[in-house]
Amino acid sequence: MSIIEGNAVIGQSGGPTAVINGSLVGVIDGLRGFGAVKKIFGMRHAVRGLVNDDLIDLTDTPQALLDRVALSPSAALGSTRDKPDAEYCQRIVEACKRHDVRYFFYIGGNDSSDACRIVNERANDAGYELRCFHVPKTVDNDLMENDHTPGFPSAARFVATAFGADSLDNASLPGIKINIVMGRHAGFLTAASALARRDPADAPHLIYLPDVPFDTERFVQDVAETYERVGRCQIAISEGIEDEQGQSIGAKLIAGETDDHGNVQLSGSGALGDSLAELLKTRLTPVGGKPPRVRADTFGYLQRCWPDASPIDRAEARQAGRFAAERAHSGDIDGSVAIRRTSTPGPGEDYSSKMERVELSAIAAKTRHMPAEFIKGHNDVTDAFLDYCRPLVGELPTLARL
Amino acid sequence: MSIIEGNAVIGQSGGPTAVINGSLVGVIDGLRGFGAVKKIFGMRHAVRGLVNDDLIDLTDTPQALLDRVALSPSAALGSTRDKPDAEYCQRIVEACKRHDVRYFFYIGGNDSSDACRIVNERANDAGYELRCFHVPKTVDNDLMENDHTPGFPSAARFVATAFGADSLDNASLPGIKINIVMGRHAGFLTAASALARRDPADAPHLIYLPDVPFDTERFVQDVAETYERVGRCQIAISEGIEDEQGQSIGAKLIAGETDDHGNVQLSGSGALGDSLAELLKTRLTPVGGKPPRVRADTFGYLQRCWPDASPIDRAEARQAGRFAAERAHSGDIDGSVAIRRTSTPGPGEDYSSKMERVELSAIAAKTRHMPAEFIKGHNDVTDAFLDYCRPLVGELPTLARL
Repeated sequence: MSIIEGNAVIGQSGGPTAVINGSLVGVIDGLRGFGAVKKIFGMRHAVRGLVNDDLIDLTDTPQALLDRVALSPSAALGSTRDKPDAEYCQRIVEACKRHDVRYFFYIGGNDSSDACRIVNERANDAGYELRCFHVPKTVDNDLMENDHTPGFPSAARFVATAFGADSLDNASLPGIKINIVMGRHAGFLTAASALARRDPADAPHLIYLPDVPFDTERFVQDVAETYERVGRCQIAISEGIEDEQGQSIGAKLIAGETDDHGNVQLSGSGALGDSLAELLKTRLTPVGGKPPRVRADTFGYLQRCWPDASPIDRAEARQAGRFAAERAHSGDIDGSVAIRRTSTPGPGEDYSSKMERVELSAIAAKTRHMPAEFIKGHNDVTDAFLDYCRPLVGELPTLARL
Repeated sequence: MSIIEGNAVIGQSGGPTAVINGSLVGVIDGLRGFGAVKKIFGMRHAVRGLVNDDLIDLTDTPQALLDRVALSPSAALGSTRDKPDAEYCQRIVEACKRHDVRYFFYIGGNDSSDACRIVNERANDAGYELRCFHVPKTVDNDLMENDHTPGFPSAARFVATAFGADSLDNASLPGIKINIVMGRHAGFLTAASALARRDPADAPHLIYLPDVPFDTERFVQDVAETYERVGRCQIAISEGIEDEQGQSIGAKLIAGETDDHGNVQLSGSGALGDSLAELLKTRLTPVGGKPPRVRADTFGYLQRCWPDASPIDRAEARQAGRFAAERAHSGDIDGSVAIRRTSTPGPGEDYSSKMERVELSAIAAKTRHMPAEFIKGHNDVTDAFLDYCRPLVGELPTLARL
């Protein structure tokens, strides 16, 4: 088998990011001028649109509009939380046949790469030649094989900017401030809060990742000690923190809604931050007869859609889409795209990266956690993490103090 | 009496903003080169620092550092929530005498202008000549006499940017999204969410201000109707919404902590948004056996400290500080600074403004509400509001759709 003629279809799945449209436009970039592809369709709300024949023809969408869409956050085609099972994937293959689709691109996280893998299997079983490419996307940064994933650097930029500014606010009216950060199983995004520090003693003073078991008593002690020593305390907490038994602290507090992937809904609620704030108000020593000033903010969806994306993230998201399209031209291969860093992380190092094709099975339904060398004790990150993360987010605002 | 020689002291009070340091540096701008002022002191944490002799000498702080501080959010001197009563104000006057302070500048909102007014009275009663100037600051935009107040345009810029990006997120994974916006008694900041619309039918679909009584049943009906018609619903709700009896909805839900001004703590908790989200999940018609997707974000403190300030706000904040210092040179006057718009609001109008001195009593402890001509029905704002607000926030990110 070599180059097969037919149409292409592109979908965007799962939680959107600030740069997911860069990958969409990147795939189109890579397909235009490739003669074997006749039409380029977009799936409205991912595979749900595909099986319902709800497609948008992108073949002739003006480049100028695409270039503007590439810079706009959130999934321009619409997304879905549907998790296709075997029968659903069968319907996807049927839809591909119906629309003469031979090139299937799916931009998403680990669940999406698994959907891509199953579609690929179903098509193979049916003897229907279909190139299946997954393009990585997730603010959680939890895909295997990748140095980092498109979407993460921009979300990390938001988190680092927010912690820097919020620390000045907290210094201005001193107290205890909890900020809840996205990240279900991997702490990368919460760890990015540390980029706000000017020196190692600066805020955030405490960082709690889902990769380290969360002990409520130890948390209270940590905060009391910091507040006593510094006179204030800014705290980064992942929405995904778990206790020693692996139980999600947030899930116990939030009503318990689950999505089709069996994931408990963590974002879109302030319950975790509010409950930890209440705990501290109750447990910490009163100052002048009143509990210390404790506030909690949950950064929420702005983390993944804030329109001031990291420049590197913008470039790589588009490049990843283009790379997938170009690989799909080259014969009977399927796969995912992995970003590899080609420079050694470190202060002053110029950053560079390259794309590589990896097997779908290497990514699908797997979760990457924070490496041990990025985690310091039970409430901090290492310099190795800072060296890793800093080049990704771009220049942060300079915040001056008197 | 004419020009009196002595020192000057500057304080920053209440909730900080993205541009409050612009006003601090503006006062210093206006005092430097004014021979009657020998030393310029900053109060550490406002009047609390003054009465405790916790001052910072700013007389020789390098201009380059001041220029950087002016661009950094949150109160560089530190702030306080202390509300000085008559006895406290007496101690303030004593502290001024102790430090040979003859020029007293206080940057803050309506409570701060009232403190300034009382200090002025106490000094007069004591026969101690003290120029007292208030410099306006509040993200709530609720000071009398002012077209708008420094701090508001930058917070409005954050809110408008956030609603625009979050609307794309909500369109991508359709559902009901509640965003809680700061603003205790005046709805200006919540109203600014409407700047995110590209056309009148665009999101935010519903806007609830504290200036209009909030009826829970009508709210549920509004959301159900919009969700049915549009397939999604993005909602802006002020943290300060009140029921028909003037009871704060948020205060009923949040533990009930009050500050020294008797204000119930509304920010720093997700309880209002979470409870309204729960209400909608319970009351709206299930889709496929499941409640509709309802999420709530509470924008929190990032609204007042996000470091991408409005350019006009930056300029005016500094100008207001400088204006106060210059007026204080001109003899035995005290007062506050009011921003007047000198252009007619309207599409395509160039924006311009000027500063005027007003009496402290015209501002002190008063609250300005949204004018009736800015409010449309019970859940929207008028074009007049958009014309008023749009020039203040600066250029917003262009968000493109397919």
